[in-house]
Amino acid sequence: MEYRIEHDLLGEKQVPADAYYGIQTLRAIENFHISGVKVNMFPLYIRALAAVKMGAAKANHNLGLLPKEIKKAIVQACEETMDGQLDDHFPIDLIQGGAGTSTNMNINEVIANRALEIMGHEKGQYEFCHPNNHVNMAQSTNDAYPTAIKIALQWMNEELVKELQLLIKSFRKKGEEFTNVIKMGRTQLQDAVPMTLGQEFEAFAATLEEEVTRLNTNAALFREIAMGATAIGTGINADPEYPDKVVKHLRKITGLELVKATNFIEATPDTGAFVIYSGTVKRLGVKLSKICNDLRLLSSGPRTGFNEINLPPMQPGSSIMPGKVNPVIPEVVNQICFIVFGNDLTVTFASEAGQLQLNVMEPVIVRSLFENIQMLRRGMESLRTNCVDGITANVEHCKEMVLNSIGIVTALNPILGYEISSSLAKEALKTNGSIYKLVLERGLIPKDELDQILSPENMVKPHHLDRIEEENDDN
Amino acid sequence: MEYRIEHDLLGEKQVPADAYYGIQTLRAIENFHISGVKVNMFPLYIRALAAVKMGAAKANHNLGLLPKEIKKAIVQACEETMDGQLDDHFPIDLIQGGAGTSTNMNINEVIANRALEIMGHEKGQYEFCHPNNHVNMAQSTNDAYPTAIKIALQWMNEELVKELQLLIKSFRKKGEEFTNVIKMGRTQLQDAVPMTLGQEFEAFAATLEEEVTRLNTNAALFREIAMGATAIGTGINADPEYPDKVVKHLRKITGLELVKATNFIEATPDTGAFVIYSGTVKRLGVKLSKICNDLRLLSSGPRTGFNEINLPPMQPGSSIMPGKVNPVIPEVVNQICFIVFGNDLTVTFASEAGQLQLNVMEPVIVRSLFENIQMLRRGMESLRTNCVDGITANVEHCKEMVLNSIGIVTALNPILGYEISSSLAKEALKTNGSIYKLVLERGLIPKDELDQILSPENMVKPHHLDRIEEENDDN
Amino acid sequence: MEYRIEHDLLGEKQVPADAYYGIQTLRAIENFHISGVKVNMFPLYIRALAAVKMGAAKANHNLGLLPKEIKKAIVQACEETMDGQLDDHFPIDLIQGGAGTSTNMNINEVIANRALEIMGHEKGQYEFCHPNNHVNMAQSTNDAYPTAIKIALQWMNEELVKELQLLIKSFRKKGEEFTNVIKMGRTQLQDAVPMTLGQEFEAFAATLEEEVTRLNTNAALFREIAMGATAIGTGINADPEYPDKVVKHLRKITGLELVKATNFIEATPDTGAFVIYSGTVKRLGVKLSKICNDLRLLSSGPRTGFNEINLPPMQPGSSIMPGKVNPVIPEVVNQICFIVFGNDLTVTFASEAGQLQLNVMEPVIVRSLFENIQMLRRGMESLRTNCVDGITANVEHCKEMVLNSIGIVTALNPILGYEISSSLAKEALKTNGSIYKLVLERGLIPKDELDQILSPENMVKPHHLDRIEEENDDN
Amino acid sequence: MEYRIEHDLLGEKQVPADAYYGIQTLRAIENFHISGVKVNMFPLYIRALAAVKMGAAKANHNLGLLPKEIKKAIVQACEETMDGQLDDHFPIDLIQGGAGTSTNMNINEVIANRALEIMGHEKGQYEFCHPNNHVNMAQSTNDAYPTAIKIALQWMNEELVKELQLLIKSFRKKGEEFTNVIKMGRTQLQDAVPMTLGQEFEAFAATLEEEVTRLNTNAALFREIAMGATAIGTGINADPEYPDKVVKHLRKITGLELVKATNFIEATPDTGAFVIYSGTVKRLGVKLSKICNDLRLLSSGPRTGFNEINLPPMQPGSSIMPGKVNPVIPEVVNQICFIVFGNDLTVTFASEAGQLQLNVMEPVIVRSLFENIQMLRRGMESLRTNCVDGITANVEHCKEMVLNSIGIVTALNPILGYEISSSLAKEALKTNGSIYKLVLERGLIPKDELDQILSPENMVKPHHLDRIEEENDDN
Repeated sequence: MEYRIEHDLLGEKQVPADAYYGIQTLRAIENFHISGVKVNMFPLYIRALAAVKMGAAKANHNLGLLPKEIKKAIVQACEETMDGQLDDHFPIDLIQGGAGTSTNMNINEVIANRALEIMGHEKGQYEFCHPNNHVNMAQSTNDAYPTAIKIALQWMNEELVKELQLLIKSFRKKGEEFTNVIKMGRTQLQDAVPMTLGQEFEAFAATLEEEVTRLNTNAALFREIAMGATAIGTGINADPEYPDKVVKHLRKITGLELVKATNFIEATPDTGAFVIYSGTVKRLGVKLSKICNDLRLLSSGPRTGFNEINLPPMQPGSSIMPGKVNPVIPEVVNQICFIVFGNDLTVTFASEAGQLQLNVMEPVIVRSLFENIQMLRRGMESLRTNCVDGITANVEHCKEMVLNSIGIVTALNPILGYEISSSLAKEALKTNGSIYKLVLERGLIPKDELDQILSPENMVKPHHLDRIEEENDDN
Repeated sequence: MEYRIEHDLLGEKQVPADAYYGIQTLRAIENFHISGVKVNMFPLYIRALAAVKMGAAKANHNLGLLPKEIKKAIVQACEETMDGQLDDHFPIDLIQGGAGTSTNMNINEVIANRALEIMGHEKGQYEFCHPNNHVNMAQSTNDAYPTAIKIALQWMNEELVKELQLLIKSFRKKGEEFTNVIKMGRTQLQDAVPMTLGQEFEAFAATLEEEVTRLNTNAALFREIAMGATAIGTGINADPEYPDKVVKHLRKITGLELVKATNFIEATPDTGAFVIYSGTVKRLGVKLSKICNDLRLLSSGPRTGFNEINLPPMQPGSSIMPGKVNPVIPEVVNQICFIVFGNDLTVTFASEAGQLQLNVMEPVIVRSLFENIQMLRRGMESLRTNCVDGITANVEHCKEMVLNSIGIVTALNPILGYEISSSLAKEALKTNGSIYKLVLERGLIPKDELDQILSPENMVKPHHLDRIEEENDDN
Repeated sequence: MEYRIEHDLLGEKQVPADAYYGIQTLRAIENFHISGVKVNMFPLYIRALAAVKMGAAKANHNLGLLPKEIKKAIVQACEETMDGQLDDHFPIDLIQGGAGTSTNMNINEVIANRALEIMGHEKGQYEFCHPNNHVNMAQSTNDAYPTAIKIALQWMNEELVKELQLLIKSFRKKGEEFTNVIKMGRTQLQDAVPMTLGQEFEAFAATLEEEVTRLNTNAALFREIAMGATAIGTGINADPEYPDKVVKHLRKITGLELVKATNFIEATPDTGAFVIYSGTVKRLGVKLSKICNDLRLLSSGPRTGFNEINLPPMQPGSSIMPGKVNPVIPEVVNQICFIVFGNDLTVTFASEAGQLQLNVMEPVIVRSLFENIQMLRRGMESLRTNCVDGITANVEHCKEMVLNSIGIVTALNPILGYEISSSLAKEALKTNGSIYKLVLERGLIPKDELDQILSPENMVKPHHLDRIEEENDDN
Repeated sequence: MEYRIEHDLLGEKQVPADAYYGIQTLRAIENFHISGVKVNMFPLYIRALAAVKMGAAKANHNLGLLPKEIKKAIVQACEETMDGQLDDHFPIDLIQGGAGTSTNMNINEVIANRALEIMGHEKGQYEFCHPNNHVNMAQSTNDAYPTAIKIALQWMNEELVKELQLLIKSFRKKGEEFTNVIKMGRTQLQDAVPMTLGQEFEAFAATLEEEVTRLNTNAALFREIAMGATAIGTGINADPEYPDKVVKHLRKITGLELVKATNFIEATPDTGAFVIYSGTVKRLGVKLSKICNDLRLLSSGPRTGFNEINLPPMQPGSSIMPGKVNPVIPEVVNQICFIVFGNDLTVTFASEAGQLQLNVMEPVIVRSLFENIQMLRRGMESLRTNCVDGITANVEHCKEMVLNSIGIVTALNPILGYEISSSLAKEALKTNGSIYKLVLERGLIPKDELDQILSPENMVKPHHLDRIEEENDDN
């Protein structure tokens, strides 16, 4: 294997000859053999890192600080990197000490070496384009690294929301399909009053729809970036005109509505946007987990459970129990959500651990958010295609349970009053009888009228009540 | 002790003669002897419960469902309750089974009995004004209880934000006071570059200011209420015109911009607003805890720590170590924040545990949010009055540390270049020498100019850099 | 109101004349108005604090450091305090800064003032018996405070385990009562194979029984105390013979098998025992929550759920739905468990926040553990008396579900083979038919034999299988 | 690419011809594209799965249920798998629905196909050795899967403890090296009293040493296995003699002291051992995080921090600040610990979600525990080799801070009394003076004696105090 020699403050090292990364990346590989989850498993992240470098190079050139030739080479190298051509050269662990310096130096080194080639030099001839002096120029890890993370998270959020919207559509479609399937609603796992299965599935869609707004609203907090803050937000060694210029370029490069943070000292150690976005992703997890719990309850059985719906069978459920099929997709989504909750806690710990002018724990925040978004995206896709889209209803069984239920007595309240209704409920429970039959037996309501009252149309929505004849006191 | 006899579905019980509450409240007292944290420890909660009952009575009267005389008595009883005159009659635990039915029945019973008195009847003569039939009329715990919680939380959020704003003001004032105190900034607990203590305190203010927006934005989600959803959101036994009427009244009664939920089936079991608001309160906790950690670090010493600031002494720190004074106020705020984080987890568990048409775990969500808001409010007040307002700076020591630091070498980069700067840094570290003296000794920069470069004005903000003479490529 | 004047390092204050506490307690009341959860809500804690003071006084007297007269007065004051006679004089918040100094000074002041009275002096005449010099003598908050906590936690653990054992007994009794109730077991909420309801309830007992061992094993870690470590574990200003003497006395006073920590420097900031005990309490919470979830599932219905068991009705479940009764007791226990999980997280945060020679966050650990133990104790008592003891089984329904189930086909596997069993399962599911009838219809197994195979005795335990005629290769 | 056709209950699929796994593994690959963390990233897990299959085959043969020839082939296939020869054939995600059925079928299929080859058949000719009938024989996923997990965790715990012990040794060695380095101890980040740096590092060793015991004690709970419980613990279709036989074989195969669970019904859904072991691993995380926080505090500076120790530089710390070196290794260990805390929460959620006769969330428990153990192992190795072993002390600076401190006044208490000591402390603080000099200036203690009192030997350990002449009252 061939090598080139590179050096830094701590000495020399052999870098593989074909590697675009350099000595500092190599140190990071050695120092941080931790999680096995590498930067190159997240192409949008690499894309964002390259976008930041491109924006900085353009701004520095505009300010007369970076020569045109080097700028052009850097910009081309960034374009290639954004296109995913150099993904293999980001082999370091997402988890790292140094507040992201290793990741920042990784992209600096890759861009510098590729720019060198573009300019006709050899990799490692940093006198012509230096990772620090030219690529990192006027940046600090402390402003460039969180900016890249925030850009990546906005893109990832878009993907997440897109997948979420497909899932919503699937639930909504089922809601329409099940519009006439009348069933018992349950509160506290106890029989309550009737509803339609369509209402239940439309509610799944409706509750997830709120998450689209929540995710987008909170992801918008990532628009605020602090390029030009440099080391601690005082902007030391950065030109006062640099921040505005770099934001302008980055808006164009990324297509995102980025804005300059109002207080760089505050922005540098601040991880508030990560905390609340993580909480928002957690909220999505809470809702998905609740929905999966419901799907598992509603499909419990087939004989000794609720048995209202059937999930599509995905795999044989048991080697010992013939014919058993399990709700494996909701089960795996539940587990994803439990990971999401755990990672949200990790984000909380990491954020609380910020000290003075920096939060050095940002890498673990990155890992936790990236993992959560990726898993939820995959989980929702699986839930949609392998489960929701194929759900069928046991229409007759659902209806039978309504007619057989005691809860329908509630609908008789306005006609028979609370006293008689209660006595019907008690008798039905005691004798294992049917409210419907009891009412008919006692001749309380004629069959036609009773059928009318207990029809789905009347039981699953509000209807007008009889009014007192009295002057109204309007306040 | 005198009693009256009340009965419900499960039988009879003796209720203390002077109690406005009735048999169901009594059962709750017996069933839920759990946390010792009672409803009556939160007057705004009782106020909100009474507001809901008033709004419902008015709407029901408008609809011709509740006679004028009873309505008037109920409204008066609600007014007295909102004024805090009946706080003693809410003795049940915040933690309860039954999804809040006990709390809902508690307010129903208190209002009914007080209304009875107003109308000239005895307590317990429910034939004239019944807790269920007249006070609870057209409500279900499942819509009335969460509505009251959401109203209470909006009011509590206002109080929280008010206290937060006072704290921000205090930090800002200190920021101004310390505007000329130059000190070393630190990243990763290592000496970085200079800043002012004023910048540091202004950043505390700025970072907390974001929380005002976050809290208000997310508390606004509580505006959406589902009065009229009744048991499971189908609105069974509620008049179709009721929801709009009750919202209109509640807006007037509470002064809050309440709106009707768009999907009652979805809204009934949904706890999403609690989850994200809890996450927002947690975010405030994360920031406060970080700030308190910083205050403790900055005041560490007096001799062997950072010793940049002095916190006002609040109590003798030790029985064994004469003269020791501890940062007890930041310490207690840290601990409050740790409780906030724990309670946020409790909210997550409770929300995930919702099943089908209801989330029966709402009472523990209430307890967790109320506790968090109250503790943070008290903690911030204490932090402001007992700590921040009295902080003083060790101006000379701060400055001395800057002049003595190696980090100031960064400011020389643009003049001396990275190579010479590095060699200065290494020599200073090795010889335990001063950058300032080294530069003068080596005659690298004249004293006047050096004093200029290392003056606070130049080191704590960006300044213009020398530009290349080259045509600019503007993109 | 009458006062006496006391002073400390920070100045003078008026102390209520009849208060046994003094100026430092007064400062704590003012500084820490936080949670409303006071020391005096935990009598065993006060008992433990007094025990520590008694042990120290005796040890100091043995060493010739505390005169006999003062020692006797202190010991008597401690006895009275241990008896609960002075509980009212511990009015400070469990949450406090200063690492417990306020609580330590509270007990020092109460003991000193009561001892003064015993010796015939006035409260506040500290020249005769001083809170620091005589009561706190050779102690530091940093050794006395955690020792008291550990003693209190051992006593509280005993109470918790006692209540747990009663609950186990109740479950076991139900296990016996339900020994012959055959029902379907469920995995993944899907019908699995038969079992008895007795096995299910005995398993609840068995799983909780493991918690008795876990709790006691981990509470035993609290036996290790560091009295004599003083400020940071170096034992500065303590006599080398003091630690052994004080442990000896404390063993006698408390009845606990206390031992001296092996490394005082390590022991002083260490909160490991709290972390693992909190984790153990959390484990109990996890199991209780799972059991309550199961009880709610098994009692779901009455018509559209599992309906295998009936929980005793505790209160009317709904104002709108006649006859509805809810599982309020398991619901409140679930919520307690969610608090337990949250508090365990608070303990984790607090423990991680220890710095250098002390963990200043101990007060919030105390609060979290005390709250968890108390709530679980009360919750288990309620679960036992208000729920488990009154549970009844729907024997016929349970049996019917077994006979009607498809899962019983598993028991036919060894006779009919996997192929035929599978085809039976498929046909039963498709035709909504009964396995039992299908087997008879097809004449696969004679009725007598089939009844035998499907009898509870055969289906709920292993039985011998037919063996191959072949020499055995025994390894 | 070549394929063979396999089928199961849901239909046919093409399996790559050279794959030892079969159709059910293929379905799992498709169904569970979630985390990217595959079974084959944990060789000890595959080893444990194969061990279980070997033990079962041997037991079944002993019972006359599995023919000798098949048994021999299975055993050989298991041996090869345990040796790691078939690791590539376990490509499924650790996260999966179905309670581990996919992983169980994966090992069943691999062993069956390899056994077929050994017996001279083709892969897929399951009539000669069937994944279910012969390999899985008398097992259920519900007993085999958790057994394999528990075996794997015991082995992984051994590795973890081994790495932990090496770290302890390193800290201990440093403790010895720094035995004479006197420094200030700090409580609440405030100067307290003197200690040695050796005591501090020895305490790190001592506190971690407790974790060895904790980990081993709690890992011992994994010894209890429920082989023979089959589907729900009733042992349906398993021979009554099977459980004892399989335990006997597994003890031999694994070298672990495995025992049979006492109640199979209880054991099947129980995840208590995972919860408490996870809590134990979390405790290790809490301690490591605290230690890393301390290392970062102690090495803060170099000029404006504590600067007591130097961590070995691992990489350049900043592109903008020449000479800056950061504590990257402790930082990354902190982050690992934050993941550990998050994963512990995931375990809690998953355990609480167990329902009735099974906990279907076990796969995410596996993922969380495996990840925690692996990361901590790697993190501790890095901490030891890249940080602790290379730590040096700033001996003079440490000593100077002691002599310059006010806290040393505590050591004068027994000689000068609390009053004079306090006045010295106050004056020193006010005048920025030295206690040492003040005592000499005032002539309170002769220089010789003072040097003696303030020598390390006297300040860092307890010494005898003057005693009262009085008869001792020995109790």
